[in-house]
Amino acid sequence: MKRITKREFLAGTTKCVMAASAGAVAMSVMPVGARQLGRAGVIDKAVTPWPWPYKTLDVEDVRKRGHKAYYDGGCCYGAFQAIVAALADTVGEPFTQLPPQIMYFGEGGGAGWGTLCGAINGAAAAIGLVVDRTNTSTIVSELFGWYTQTPFPTDTSNDYAVHHLFLVNKYDKPLPQSVSGSPLCHASVSLWCTASGIKSTAPERLERCARLTGDCAARAVEMLNAFFAGQFRPNFVTSAAVAQCQSCHGAAIVDVVPKVKMECPQCHKPQWDHLY
Amino acid sequence: MKRITKREFLAGTTKCVMAASAGAVAMSVMPVGARQLGRAGVIDKAVTPWPWPYKTLDVEDVRKRGHKAYYDGGCCYGAFQAIVAALADTVGEPFTQLPPQIMYFGEGGGAGWGTLCGAINGAAAAIGLVVDRTNTSTIVSELFGWYTQTPFPTDTSNDYAVHHLFLVNKYDKPLPQSVSGSPLCHASVSLWCTASGIKSTAPERLERCARLTGDCAARAVEMLNAFFAGQFRPNFVTSAAVAQCQSCHGAAIVDVVPKVKMECPQCHKPQWDHLY
Repeated sequence: MKRITKREFLAGTTKCVMAASAGAVAMSVMPVGARQLGRAGVIDKAVTPWPWPYKTLDVEDVRKRGHKAYYDGGCCYGAFQAIVAALADTVGEPFTQLPPQIMYFGEGGGAGWGTLCGAINGAAAAIGLVVDRTNTSTIVSELFGWYTQTPFPTDTSNDYAVHHLFLVNKYDKPLPQSVSGSPLCHASVSLWCTASGIKSTAPERLERCARLTGDCAARAVEMLNAFFAGQFRPNFVTSAAVAQCQSCHGAAIVDVVPKVKMECPQCHKPQWDHLY
Repeated sequence: MKRITKREFLAGTTKCVMAASAGAVAMSVMPVGARQLGRAGVIDKAVTPWPWPYKTLDVEDVRKRGHKAYYDGGCCYGAFQAIVAALADTVGEPFTQLPPQIMYFGEGGGAGWGTLCGAINGAAAAIGLVVDRTNTSTIVSELFGWYTQTPFPTDTSNDYAVHHLFLVNKYDKPLPQSVSGSPLCHASVSLWCTASGIKSTAPERLERCARLTGDCAARAVEMLNAFFAGQFRPNFVTSAAVAQCQSCHGAAIVDVVPKVKMECPQCHKPQWDHLY
């Protein structure tokens, strides 16, 4: 395995190191970190270059890991740990060196704030470990898009629970499914609670999010396997409703981010935003 | 420094390892990863236990790093790299082993989706590296709350730009400030564009997000320094508007997540949701 030095790691990209070698002018804009290495007095140990190496994973094994890990540490930790631990088993180092607890914070849409669903936040971080920046963005965008259109929990996860195939069995009945239309925790959970008539504080809701965590980790690995086999093709396109909004609220109007793909009408009703 | 084995790391918690030693029944619910270690054929190398060690950082140094790192890799990478590289300088290993590129994915609210602001997503992951789960949640929640109430870019960042004190100088004028009332990228950027009259595609908007990235990394480190000095006290409370909504839409009604702290009226106008 090709290795880079800590100096290269700290600079973020090898390009920065090349700039540094060009002279003192380039050095002056480098982060302090890269210049103070000698003073830190730490061992100049080689690190694995990023992106870290990937090997094909068993999608269904990762789905089961994600479901279990949700109960160990929440949705964001769950999806991240499922993929990283599977890679630690399959590849070994450096995945064995990374604490999955780094993603605890993402549960409940980020410390309970209800923003980005932790399962896709954690899965996205795992994707970002093994895929370059441009393709990470493409795969993560596809993951988010798939999330907004998928009935959760999936039939596969419901079947696993019914047949006691998950690694933990908290609830062995199929759960009602709902489509969120949004990557936000608040929308995803609230719409499921509305559709199912189950309170967000109920054990069944936790089990719903455990199955969803497994589903998101599995979907991420399915895409990673396809990507490294040269077979990944993104399918998600923004909806007709979004396209209609952006036909006016695009780059020509200042008050919108043109790239946003969330469903505008979930928060902006025409009756509301166009009248007030 | 106390070290744990890879087996302990993979199990996620030492509690799982203790359960495993209790016998075959406990083993049956352990993740496959923990049971296949011997077969993976990798070196059973010791890893640094989580949370990783923290040392007091220079808040203003981290603000400058975050501003620069935004231009290297976006908001989420920027805030994360600023803190992790500062810790690599100050503590050394294991921070030198972690590729900050893992957080590229979070830019533009997650692959451009406009969900959770990448700067606080990245800063939160850095907090999660060095703080236990419960306190991470408290500090990250405070970070999100502070974000929703702070005029960005801060006066400090505007001053740094004007006086050419940042590590890179793309735009040396003070920028208009706005308060997002939301941790979401879409709301934060769109409201700033509306307030400033500057398009989201303009270089000034990029510079606004670069300054904001530095500000969020700096605020995270300010809280971490206080936490490890035993002086951290969270101040954020949900607004009167949220409290009023939750007086009915709390746990008693099924269709809401009681813990959500986002400003309800930003997406739910009473005139809309209570009439339709």
